[in-house]
Amino acid sequence: MKFEIIHTSTKSRARVGKITTPHGVIDTPNFVAVGTNGTIKALDSILVEQLGLQLMFCNTYHLLLQPGTQVVKEAGGLHQFINRKLPIITDSGGFQVFSLAYGSVANELKSKGTKKTDGSVLKITEEGVLFRSYRDGSKVMLTPESSIAAQKDLGADIIIPFDELPPYHICSKLLEESLERTHRWEKRSLDAHLQNPQDQAMYAVIHGGVSAALRRKSCEFLADLPFDGFAIGGSVGKNKTEMIEMLSTLLPLIPSDKPNHLLGIGDLSSIEASIPLGIDTFDSSYPTRSARHGTALTPQGNLNITKGENARNFEPIDKECLCPTCRQFSVAYIHHLFKAKEVTALTLTTIHNLYFMVQLMNDYRAKILNDEI
Amino acid sequence: MKFEIIHTSTKSRARVGKITTPHGVIDTPNFVAVGTNGTIKALDSILVEQLGLQLMFCNTYHLLLQPGTQVVKEAGGLHQFINRKLPIITDSGGFQVFSLAYGSVANELKSKGTKKTDGSVLKITEEGVLFRSYRDGSKVMLTPESSIAAQKDLGADIIIPFDELPPYHICSKLLEESLERTHRWEKRSLDAHLQNPQDQAMYAVIHGGVSAALRRKSCEFLADLPFDGFAIGGSVGKNKTEMIEMLSTLLPLIPSDKPNHLLGIGDLSSIEASIPLGIDTFDSSYPTRSARHGTALTPQGNLNITKGENARNFEPIDKECLCPTCRQFSVAYIHHLFKAKEVTALTLTTIHNLYFMVQLMNDYRAKILNDEI
Repeated sequence: MKFEIIHTSTKSRARVGKITTPHGVIDTPNFVAVGTNGTIKALDSILVEQLGLQLMFCNTYHLLLQPGTQVVKEAGGLHQFINRKLPIITDSGGFQVFSLAYGSVANELKSKGTKKTDGSVLKITEEGVLFRSYRDGSKVMLTPESSIAAQKDLGADIIIPFDELPPYHICSKLLEESLERTHRWEKRSLDAHLQNPQDQAMYAVIHGGVSAALRRKSCEFLADLPFDGFAIGGSVGKNKTEMIEMLSTLLPLIPSDKPNHLLGIGDLSSIEASIPLGIDTFDSSYPTRSARHGTALTPQGNLNITKGENARNFEPIDKECLCPTCRQFSVAYIHHLFKAKEVTALTLTTIHNLYFMVQLMNDYRAKILNDEI
Repeated sequence: MKFEIIHTSTKSRARVGKITTPHGVIDTPNFVAVGTNGTIKALDSILVEQLGLQLMFCNTYHLLLQPGTQVVKEAGGLHQFINRKLPIITDSGGFQVFSLAYGSVANELKSKGTKKTDGSVLKITEEGVLFRSYRDGSKVMLTPESSIAAQKDLGADIIIPFDELPPYHICSKLLEESLERTHRWEKRSLDAHLQNPQDQAMYAVIHGGVSAALRRKSCEFLADLPFDGFAIGGSVGKNKTEMIEMLSTLLPLIPSDKPNHLLGIGDLSSIEASIPLGIDTFDSSYPTRSARHGTALTPQGNLNITKGENARNFEPIDKECLCPTCRQFSVAYIHHLFKAKEVTALTLTTIHNLYFMVQLMNDYRAKILNDEI
C-alpha cells in the first residue's frame, strides 16, 4: 500500500491524499460504505462500482459465521467471491462481538449504564474472546491469530488487528486494563499478519475510550509498530462536542505520513466536523441504512420519502443529481414502492444515497485543494 | 393495436405473431411477467427493459388501492410513473377482488370446497362488487365503468373488461348465472372503453369455468363484440390434463386473427403444453416468485440455490446463460446472500429467471418458425 498526501489545507489539518492498493486507488478524504455480508444491502457489486465507491467495508465477524471464511477462500478470496474489482477493508470481528453484546453507546447512554451484555460474550481471556454465534448458537473462539487467519482467507486490501471494545460505562482501571490487553492483541495480530503479508495493509486501532491520557498512550504505543495506517476505534465521546474535542487532541499524535480512518462514524455532520481535523476515511452504515428507512440525502437536507406529502411529488429526489435513480424515477414512484413494501424502493434509494456520498466526498476534496476548508 | 401472424406451424396450432402497440412490439408467443404494484419485484423498470421483457402485467386492483389511479394519472400515466417505455397490460381488478376472497383453485381443492370467502367481498350485484380494501379496511365499489375509468387513468396498452371470477366449486346453475352477468359486465366495459379508446386495446375474457358448453357459449358471445383480443380467464380445470383438454376445445372457437392470452398460467410445463394449442401470451408470477424463494430456472431444470450443497457451488446458475447474474456471480455467492437474508439475492435470482423466460420464448418462436412444434 502506498499513501501520498497531495495537498494539506492552509486553513486546517484537512488534507487530500491518495491510497494505492492492489485493487486500485482510494482518494481521500473518502466515505467507506458498509457491506456487512459482502454486499451493500439492496445493491450488487457491479452497481456499487458504477456509483464510484472506492472502498467497501466488510465485516469479518459476519462472514466468519456465514458463509465461513474458508468458503470465501475457496472462491478465490472476497473480491472474487463478491465480484468486486475495487478495494475492500475488513475489520477484525472484535468490534462486532463486543458491540452486539453491549449494544451501541447510544443504547448504553439511554439505559444509563445499567444495560448488561446480551450474554453472547461468554469469556474474555488473554487468549481472546469466546462468544456464542448469533446464527446457530455454537461457541466460537476469536483470537488475534484466528481473526488474522480469517482476514487472510478474505484477502481484503486493508485489514484490522483484533481489539477489545470496552463498554462506554467502564471504570478507568478496567479501561486501562482493556487498553493494555488490546495493545497486546494488536501486536499479536501484527505479528501474525507479517508472517504472511499477502500484499495486505494493516491499520492499527487506537483505543483508550474517552480518556485523553489513554488515547495518547495508545497512539504512542501503536505508532512505534510497523502498521500501515491508523484507525480510531471505541467511543470517542457521548456527543459530537466530545468527539470533536477528542479528535482534535488525537490527530496531531497520529503519524501524519500514514492514512487514518475513523471507525463507524459517517453521518454528515460528523464528516463535516472531522475533515478539518485531518481524518482521511470514514465508514458508516448511515447513508445506506437511512435509505432503507426511506430517508434520502440531499444538499438541501434529508428528504423523508415516505411522508404523505411525497405521494404526489413527481420530481426526482434531487433535480441536480445525476444518479440513476434521480435521472429515471420520481419521489412519488419511490414513495409508492415504499408504501407497497416493494424492495425496489430500498434499491433505488440506496443508489441515490451512495452516489450522494461519493459526490459529497468529491466536493470536500475539491474544497480542500482550494484551501476552502 | 395491430396483430400479424407471421407463421403457423405445419405440425400444430402453434403460431408466431407480432402485436404492435403504442409502446412497441410484442413478439408472440411470449411470456408476460407480473409487476403487481408497478414494478417487477426486486427489479427496476430500466433493468426489466434491458432483460428484454416486451410486455409487463400490472394489477389495477393493487394500483387502485395504492397509490390510487388518480396519482398515476397525474404522473402522466403508468408508463411515465414507473418509467417503462415498452408495452404494459392491466387487468380489471375483478380477478383479484374475487381470488383474494375465495383463495386459489389449489387451495379450494385442498379444502374440498368447504373454504368460504375471507369476507372481503361484501356484496355482488348487477351493478358491480363491493369489497373491503386489504390496505385500510375501507369499502370500495368496483363496477365495469369504474374499472375501465381506473384503467384509463393507468393508460396501459392492453386493458381487460371487468369480470366475475366464480369459485371453482360452484354448481352449474350459479356458474351459468355468473357467466351471463360477466358477459353483461364485459359488454358494459367495452362500451365504456369505446367512449374514449385512448389508443388502448381491450381483450375480452372468456369464462365458463370447467364447463365446455359454457366456454363455447362465452366464445360465441364475445367473438361477436369488437374486442381486440381474447383472454382465457377463470379455472380451466383442476389439473394439467383438464387444462389441456379445455384449451384444445376452446382455441379453435376463438377468432384466430386476433391475439389470445392465457391469464395467470405460466409455469414451464403449462407453457410447453399450451403453445402447440395456439396460445399467444401467458402471464404468471411463477418465474419471479420462485426466484424470491431461491429457485433458479435452467434448461436442465430447477436449481434450488439455498440447498446446502450449493454453499460451495462456484459456477454460475447456468454456464451457458448470458444474463448479468450468470456472467458476474456464482451460485455460492447468491446462496450466501439468501442465507444472510440480503435482498440482493432476490434481485440477482429474479434477473436470471426473467432473462431465462425471455430466452425460452425466443427459442419457442424459433422452433415454431421451423415447424418443430
